[in-house]
This record gives sequence, structure tokens and C-alpha cells, in this order.
Amino acid sequence: MFSVYCRSNDYLQIVSPDRKVAVNFCLNKKGEPMYRVSYLNHEILAPSRMGLDLSDAFLTKGLKLTGEERTTFKEKWNPVWGQYAEIVNHYNELTLSLENKANRKLQIIFRVFNDGIGFRYMLPGNGEAVVIDENSEFNMPTDNEVYWSAACFENDESLYQVCKLSKVTEALCRKSATPGYARFSPCKTGFNTPLTMKTPDGIYLSIHEAALWNYPGMSLELNPKELTMKSLLASKSKEKALVNLPFSTPWRTICIGNRAGALIESSLILNLNEPCKLTDVSWIKPMKYDGIWWAMHVKESTWELERSNIHGANTENVKRYIDFAAQNGLGGVLVEGWNKGWDGWKNFRYTEPYPDFDMKELSQYAASKGVQIMGHHETGGDVQNYINQMDSAYAYYQQNGIHSFKTGYVGFINKHFHYDQWMVNHYNETVTKAAKYKLMVNIHEPIKPTGLCRTYPNLMSGEGMRGQEYNAWSDGNPPTQSALLPFIRNLAGPMDYTPGIFDTQLKNSPNRPENGGVHSTLANQLALYVVFYSPIQMAADLPGNYEGNEAFQFIRDVPVDWADTRVLEAEPGEYVMIARRDKKSNNWFVGAITNEQERNMTVDFSFLPEGEEYNLTIYRDKPGTSWQNNPTRYEIEKRVVSHSNKITIDIVPGGGFALSIMK
Amino acid sequence: MFSVYCRSNDYLQIVSPDRKVAVNFCLNKKGEPMYRVSYLNHEILAPSRMGLDLSDAFLTKGLKLTGEERTTFKEKWNPVWGQYAEIVNHYNELTLSLENKANRKLQIIFRVFNDGIGFRYMLPGNGEAVVIDENSEFNMPTDNEVYWSAACFENDESLYQVCKLSKVTEALCRKSATPGYARFSPCKTGFNTPLTMKTPDGIYLSIHEAALWNYPGMSLELNPKELTMKSLLASKSKEKALVNLPFSTPWRTICIGNRAGALIESSLILNLNEPCKLTDVSWIKPMKYDGIWWAMHVKESTWELERSNIHGANTENVKRYIDFAAQNGLGGVLVEGWNKGWDGWKNFRYTEPYPDFDMKELSQYAASKGVQIMGHHETGGDVQNYINQMDSAYAYYQQNGIHSFKTGYVGFINKHFHYDQWMVNHYNETVTKAAKYKLMVNIHEPIKPTGLCRTYPNLMSGEGMRGQEYNAWSDGNPPTQSALLPFIRNLAGPMDYTPGIFDTQLKNSPNRPENGGVHSTLANQLALYVVFYSPIQMAADLPGNYEGNEAFQFIRDVPVDWADTRVLEAEPGEYVMIARRDKKSNNWFVGAITNEQERNMTVDFSFLPEGEEYNLTIYRDKPGTSWQNNPTRYEIEKRVVSHSNKITIDIVPGGGFALSIMK
Repeated sequence: MFSVYCRSNDYLQIVSPDRKVAVNFCLNKKGEPMYRVSYLNHEILAPSRMGLDLSDAFLTKGLKLTGEERTTFKEKWNPVWGQYAEIVNHYNELTLSLENKANRKLQIIFRVFNDGIGFRYMLPGNGEAVVIDENSEFNMPTDNEVYWSAACFENDESLYQVCKLSKVTEALCRKSATPGYARFSPCKTGFNTPLTMKTPDGIYLSIHEAALWNYPGMSLELNPKELTMKSLLASKSKEKALVNLPFSTPWRTICIGNRAGALIESSLILNLNEPCKLTDVSWIKPMKYDGIWWAMHVKESTWELERSNIHGANTENVKRYIDFAAQNGLGGVLVEGWNKGWDGWKNFRYTEPYPDFDMKELSQYAASKGVQIMGHHETGGDVQNYINQMDSAYAYYQQNGIHSFKTGYVGFINKHFHYDQWMVNHYNETVTKAAKYKLMVNIHEPIKPTGLCRTYPNLMSGEGMRGQEYNAWSDGNPPTQSALLPFIRNLAGPMDYTPGIFDTQLKNSPNRPENGGVHSTLANQLALYVVFYSPIQMAADLPGNYEGNEAFQFIRDVPVDWADTRVLEAEPGEYVMIARRDKKSNNWFVGAITNEQERNMTVDFSFLPEGEEYNLTIYRDKPGTSWQNNPTRYEIEKRVVSHSNKITIDIVPGGGFALSIMK
Repeated sequence: MFSVYCRSNDYLQIVSPDRKVAVNFCLNKKGEPMYRVSYLNHEILAPSRMGLDLSDAFLTKGLKLTGEERTTFKEKWNPVWGQYAEIVNHYNELTLSLENKANRKLQIIFRVFNDGIGFRYMLPGNGEAVVIDENSEFNMPTDNEVYWSAACFENDESLYQVCKLSKVTEALCRKSATPGYARFSPCKTGFNTPLTMKTPDGIYLSIHEAALWNYPGMSLELNPKELTMKSLLASKSKEKALVNLPFSTPWRTICIGNRAGALIESSLILNLNEPCKLTDVSWIKPMKYDGIWWAMHVKESTWELERSNIHGANTENVKRYIDFAAQNGLGGVLVEGWNKGWDGWKNFRYTEPYPDFDMKELSQYAASKGVQIMGHHETGGDVQNYINQMDSAYAYYQQNGIHSFKTGYVGFINKHFHYDQWMVNHYNETVTKAAKYKLMVNIHEPIKPTGLCRTYPNLMSGEGMRGQEYNAWSDGNPPTQSALLPFIRNLAGPMDYTPGIFDTQLKNSPNRPENGGVHSTLANQLALYVVFYSPIQMAADLPGNYEGNEAFQFIRDVPVDWADTRVLEAEPGEYVMIARRDKKSNNWFVGAITNEQERNMTVDFSFLPEGEEYNLTIYRDKPGTSWQNNPTRYEIEKRVVSHSNKITIDIVPGGGFALSIMK
């Protein structure tokens, strides 16, 4: 496969602190930088080239090694919110200084963690540089099972596919793309990241990137015959990135574990980001929320005001959602369709409410109830229009006591891909600018997360996957999708999936689009609050569908910020069971879901501290039901449990269970 | 260092079941078989050649690979006696079929375990072959700390040395040899095995061999500049071994661990031997014993009868030892000097007792007390004289109800080294022949153990180290020696050190030789019953020195056959603390010793099952004492302990402690 190998003794090695992960680097005879990766003597990555080409210098071959520096780093840090109260960041680092014959310099920096690796390129010097190509190869030594979405620079809302690497075809890539987006694929066969795989030996790995600042997003082009992959940078021009020197690219990451759950438990992406740059984080608060959103998707309400008698964001209606939130311990109320621009879907005005939405009255009403209004900024793809108003828009929210908002980027963007350098810079600017106005951000149609929330923890959550709304008006998301999301999109960062639809068959929404319907049981919807990680979680259904339903107690009880996370069982696309410990109360919560297959799962309560008893409440599927058959029927059982207990619970097709384990 | 490397992609890899240990094999451009070994990405063995040269074929170069076979093996087996009630034997095996240009065949078989590797050569075909050299290299990539005795084909009774590999010199090898044996060294610098090392990264390894049948013993020649080692086969002629084809050599072994204790806990040597070949093992019984032995070393008695008025093995004296054994739960009484030949040290007669030793009366007396006489066969080096009498000698013991005997090979052997093929075959024949007469064997001046006791568990124990007797009449063994033995000689197999001297300063033996004295405290002597592993353990002191001494209760209590073994703390030559669980009672016993340095050690009782209380008795050094100063003063303390307790105990220079932890 490769014409030029390195002799084994020419490799420089760097290993993880526990020595299980090893990266071997060499320059081959052509002066091409090459690396390979192993995990416990499994070859994870075959020899793969690396390097950058600039408009005025090739830094992918003809290089020589001029320096080598090794460091070890270990810290413990406390995220403002997250899967853990404390995170260990421990790695060995190898910096390789390279030069071409014209003395142009490139550094490659490897960091090797117990749970994977990251590498980045650093261009020293000063002035500007134009990156015309990045050649980061990820060549697989084995025909791995791959959990994937097709390469696309515009959109991350396709259904995930599962097959062997060698079985990925152009036809399958086009077919699996988000409807209407196949024509934007930058290659015949390729992937967006996170790209998760399972080797024939049962090792799980996920390729992604961390700390994406001032650079295009990376997709991967696949050669399915050779099992090789190469970086593709999003850009509409040959010039992929214009940067000021010195410049460091994002980290290219490979998370590795011998359990699928290890990928979910990993903090590698966060650890490769800079520490928090905000000094005051007191205003950043994880919360649950309801909102005026699902009503539009099931056609109970409209975003638009004109020619509609069911405009959702009217003052009285918003007050009802505020009341419901206040009564049920939800911290926020999202309001979409509150501002001018929705009618005509252009020239959105971010400081001008529709006349039936009284911002001042509502924000005061919300404050009196201890609830926050969550704002919304849809751009409709007209990003320049949004950029022109960002400062005034954020100031307007701040003046009205709003600390949280959601953005939207539906539609194509003039001259730009969603994921090119210009848009990456825009997305990041919404976060850094919002921080100045003490605003938490939830980005929809976003650039994929890359761990920036460590540095700016006001970046709370985001979309970038085929979310709940597809269940309102399309063929929807099959149960397998929910069993894939924790292993793909959610590895990148928090995910605003908006779970909690109780009326899964939309029986209370007679105007719903054809085919509408959530493809899960009600108990599965409850489990998603634990299975899907996000520090903001919506109780997405219409309040009327929750009222009087005993299962809503779980949504009331479940927290959104965790001291600890343990993946108890996991297989991508099949099943996942996660236990998490509440950061405030030390109560535990467990969520478990299956795909279309019924199965039983055994909860081993040994994660509980020894010698203490807890009150367990089990929310589970009624026997004989399924996501197609009586999906809203469930059972609640209460017991006392402790460290030594094990309980086996049946799950129906498309089902799940949720446990609250409280003192 | 090597002119010819293999390219990294030319290596065939085989890894341990836990994938932490990896062996990479290749044929280099000269057709030389080469292997390298890593442990958790530490390079343990640099590229090292392998192969055999026969009198009519070189099988060390010009080879090509004709076949490659991989298998995985896992079994659990129960040794008749040992450190564990159950042993897991789990390895991956790679068999490489090689051929030279004349189509002469050689197989190399690797077995890779979680705790190390073994490899052997197999010569297929039929007829005879003469091995003229074995070229098994063990090339170190680092200047390891090495715990060693100098290469010698005659003797394993030198003081161990500790230094860096690069600091081993010819002068040091000669100086450290057993007195009188330096002239027999087969090389300027080299070692006998087990050869234990510690890498600069803190990895411990031990090179040895397993299943030594019909082949000479292996020593290692060191090149201290290159840090390379090569096999040396014991032989007085150029022909090292004459074998019938097909033939398999012993396994060359490298035990590896990241704790020194892992070497002691390893069962790798046993696992590389064949399963037990005896169908009836009911007569094989681990036991403690006393005997007529120390009295000769401290000149209270003689082996010889003529011109002595203190012949030890007289009937009345033996009866006193039988009585003492019966009173104190010891199973056997060793009797040395009972047979003709001691006077003149030649023409030993193995069926003819001295006239003052009444074999029939004593064996009946012993049986009436529930005690066994343990026989003794000294050869004085005249092995042919012994071979001529073996069958009749063993039948004589069997007829007299004796189930156990000790052999001795003091002196040089006509035409042979102690460790050449002929002597290896003789040693092994004593074991297989003894099994036919239901006799347990304890070999002194033996070939080093290589795990044959798995196959023939009547091979109970042996010498092959500088034992207790050196303390009676030489400069003795400094405290460091006891702290080295568990990491060197005892790794090979059970060790009949004969501990338990209470009168360490030999005050009750006025005739003792100059310089006599045991270089340890009394508490240290107790600890040796746990620290040194053997299924037979002598209470070596004169019975009078035990009588009335409270500390003797520990020797009464301590068992010799174990269900479990845990090394709690260990550093070669410094200290070691081992906990073992009795196979019969599930009581636990702990032994801990130090070298010349005082220190304290903390016993973490978490090895005890949760929720159960045990009666702990601590036998420890009196504060302020040392091996030189009041070494026999000790303290006994009794407490109740359970799983969660930790107790810190002071140890004086040359001291130790012993714990009985009983229900």
C-alpha cells in the first residue's frame, strides 16, 4: 500500500501515561512525516502521512527533523458544568520541529492520553500564510465497522449509517445525505466527524477534532478499497484558510477504548481545549426548559404572525409556559417566533418583537416566577444581517434580563459553507461576544462542537444532528438513531436533542404533518435525559401532554449537571445504559435505551456507595408494548436499593427505562 | 549495534492475552531469526538473534520462513501443592517453521503470557542430532540494574551481586564466585539463571528456563559494553547435547512485571511444563520437618561414625527428634549420616545403615508417632556409584516406610559438570524413578529447578543457593541475601533454605566454627517461612533451642501449602512482605523482612474477606535490636483484625516480622 516505509528503528515513539496507547512518528525516505498508532499492541492506525501545504511552501514532503521536545502534563480541573465535577488532564507531549529545503518550518505536536491521541500543526514565524491543503491521513489497518454520516460541508442532519468501511459507496453516501444535500458532498465517499468505528478486535475509536478556532471544519475522504482516509477542509475556494503566524491548527483527535462506553466517558476533546477564559461564571446555569417550539412543528402554532391566528409567541401563551415551568422546576422558557422577520423569512430584526409579544412584561413576569425567558435568533442563512445586529441584539437581551438564547442557521449562506473558516469564525464570535453580555448560547445548525465550551462555558449546547423535530414531520428517526447518537454526535459535545415527547403518536395534535410520530416508547423518552448529555435539556412536549402524567415526575427530578458519569452497558446502534450522579444532591439517575430489538438489561448498583440505602423509582415500558404498539404505556415501581443489588429490567422494541435513585 | 535490522512491517507480532506483552519476530536480510520484546510499549528486549547450530547444519542464519501457526490456549489447573490452589495457564502461541537452503528444518515456538514469554526450539524429523551451539540472545536496550550470580556450570552457592549491567567485570565475577569455583567460569563476564533485572523505567524481568529435560543447563555470557547476552550451554566437550529427533529444547523464559512482586506471583515457569504425569499423588505431602543436620554444621554431632563419639544418626538421638516432631506438628525427621560411606567420603552404601542406626526400629517408632523418617543420599560426587544403587536404594526406603529423601552432590563429578546434559538427565531420573517408589525428593547441589515439579510433584524442593549452613561456618549470608533470594533463586522453584535458627549467635554451640552466626534477628527467621516458598520447610535449629521459646508457636502454626499468595511490598535486596492463605484452613500468614536497613512496613489487611474478624498474632523485633545487637529479642502482640485495618510495624536492621491471622 505504501511505497516507502520507515525502518522500525527510525520511529520516534511517544506513549500514553499508562503506556497502552503509542504513537510512532517518522520521516520516510521522501521526507514525508508519517505516524502510526497502537493501543495495547492493536494496530489502530496504519502508517499515515501528515502535513500542510501552503500557497508558497509544501510542508508535506522533503522535510527534515531539526528538533524534538518531550513534556509531560497533568492537571485536575473543575468544569463549570459537565459529565464530571472534576476532570483529569494527563498526557505526554512530543513536539517535532521540521523544515523543508527552503528552511520553511512546521511543527507537529502530539499529545498522547490514556484514552487517545491528538495532534496539531503549528506554523511558526510571522506575517500571513494561506493553507491550500491539509494532508492528515487516517489509514485503517483493518476493515472496521463504521458508524457514519456522509461528508458534507453544509449540514449534519442525516441519518447515521452502519457498515464496514469497505462497503461504503458513493450511492450510499448520496442516499444517506440529508434530503437535498447530496449535491454538496465534497467527495464520492467520505464522512463528517465524529466518525466512530469498531475494529475486528473489538476496539472502539472515534476520529474528530478539538479547539476549532479560525480554521475550516474537517471532513474525511475515504478510499474504501484501501481503507485510507484523508482530511478535507471546508471551503468554496482553493484557499482553505488564511491565517496570521504563528498559527496552530485545531487538534486532530482519535479517542480509543476497549469498551464503547469509554468513548462516552472520555474527556479528551475537552482536555485539548484551553482552560476557561471567563472570570465570572456565576451567571452560567445549567437548566431544564420548556418552550414555544414543538407546537410549531406539530402545527398547533406558527412562528409567523401575519395571516396566522395561531401565532405561538404571544404574551398570554408565553405566560402559560412560564407558569408551567415555574410549577415544575424548569428554569427557562424558550420562545421562538417572537421577533420580526419570520413573515417572509428575511431581514430578521433582533431588537424588534412582534406586536403581540410584550418583552418587558414577559421578562418581569418570568422573573417574578423565578424563570428565565430564553431568546431565539434565527438568521435564515443571512449571516451578514445577523452580524450587523449582534451587539445591539445581545444588549437588548441583557437589558431585558435574558441570560440565554438559541441561534438558528437554516438555509444556505451567501458565498460560504456552514463549516468554512469564515463561518467557524462567526459561530465562535457569537460565543465570545455573548459572553461579554453574559448570555448562554445554544447554537442550532451549528458547526460541530469541538470542546470550546471548556474555554467559553457559556456555549451550552447545540444541534448538529437529526433532532426530535424530524419526528414531527418526516419519516422520523428510527430507534437505532437514538442508540447511535451517544456514540457519534454526542462525543463532540452537548446535544440539544429536545427529548421528552410523551404524546409520541401525536394524537393530541390533529393538524400534524403526515407521517409524524416519535419512534420510541414514553419510557425511552425519559431515558434520553440521562443517555443524551447536555447541560440544558428541554421538556419538549406541549405542557398539556405532561399534565396529570405520573411519568413527568422523572423529568421534574432529573438534573442536568453531573458529578460523575458511568457507562454501564454500550454497543453503538444497539443499546446504551448510563448512570450519572447529580452534582448537587449526589442522587443517581440511570437511563437505558434499546434499538428496534427488545432485550433485558441488568443494572448493577455497585456504583452506589457501600452501606447506604436509596429510594429507587423505576420508569419502564409496559410489557407487550413497543415503539409501534401502545408506546405511551409504562409502569412505575418503587423499591429500596443499595450497593450490592442487581436488578434486571425488560425493554421492549424502541423502549427504555429511567431510574431515579434518591436519598 | 546490529548491522541488519528488519523493517518494521516485516515483523510478525504475537501478544499476550491482555495485549501488554508483545513479541515481534523477523528474519533479517541474512536469514537470521530475530525477536524483540516489549511490555506496555517499554522495549524490554532489543533485537536479539536466535537459533541452533547442529554438527551437520547451521540453523542460525540463511533461513527462510515456510510456515506460521497461531493458537490460543487457556486452562485452569490445580497443583498438588504450591503457592496457589488454582493456576491459570493462558497464552497465545506462535510457531514459526524455518528451513535452511539444504531444507534442514527448525521450528521456533513462542508462548506469550500476561506475565512474560517463553520460546523453545523444535527439531523435527528422526534420527539423532548433535547440538554444538545455541545462539539465544537476550540483548538489553537499557543499562538495567541486575541481581546476579556469576556464570558457573558447577555450583549455585555464591553471594548474589547487585549492580548495573555495564558495571559487571571479570574481576567482580571471579571475586563473587563460590570460593574455589572461579576457575570454572565458562566466560569472563556472565550469569547463571534466574537472572533478575530492573529497567530504568522500573520494569522487573527475570530470565530463566523451563522444562529442562535431556539438555544442558543454560548460563548467559554478557558483553557489558554492548549490554548483550548470549546462551552458554554447560558441557565439557564441543558437543553440547546429543538428542533424538524430533526434539524440543527447554523453554527460554522472560518473566515481566511492573512490580517486583509480580515476578514472585508469576506461575509462568510452571505453566511452561507438562501437566502432572502421576496418577496417584496421595502419598505426596507437604510438611514441616526437623532433623539431624544443623547439629553437624555447628559441630555438636558428626556425619561420620568412626573416630567420633558424637555420631548424630544414632537410634536414640533420632528418637528424640521424632518425639520433638510429634509434639510440635512437624511431619518429618531428616537424618543425615545414617549410612556407610561417610567415613572416607567414598563408596557410599545406600542400603547399609551404620550399626548404631536401627532402620526398622526407627521407622516403626516414627510411624507410631505419626511422623515420617526423611532419608538422605549423599553421593560425594560419585554419581556412577549412586546410579548403580538407585533402584535398590529406593526400594530399601520404600520397604522401610520412608516416603521422602534428600540427595546431595557435594564435590566434582567425573567427566561432567553438575549442569551438563548427562547430569541433567541424572537429576531428572532421580525424580522419575523415585516416583515409581512413591518417594518425595529434595535435591541438594541440584541442577536449578525449571518447573518440573508440575509434571512430577514428588520433586518437592531443592538447594541451589547459599543456604543456612553457610551461617554456621563461614562469613555467612548478609541480611541482603535473604532479601534477594525471593527474587532470584526462589523464582525458579521451591527452595530448601532451612530457616528457623533461633540461637542466631550460636551461643549454645560452643564448638561452632569461627565466624559462625546467623545474620538476622529471630523475628526475621520466622518471617522466612512465608517469605521463602517451599512445600517442605525445616525447623532447622536444635530442638533444645526451641523448647520454652514462645516464638516457636509461629513455626507450629505456619503451614507449607497455600491457596493464595500476594506480594504486598517488594524491592529486590531491600525488603519483601508476602501474605499467603493456608490451603486447609483459609487462615492467612504474613512474612516481612528487610536488609541491613531498618524501616517500617504497613500491612494493609484488605486481603482478608470483608466482614470477618481474625485473631492476629504479631511476632516482631524488639525495638533497638538488630541482627548484630540482641537479635533474639522479640515481642508478641495479639489483636483482632479485619479487612479494613492497616497496621504499621517497625523492622530493625536485619529484622522482620511474622503474622498469623487465624479464625
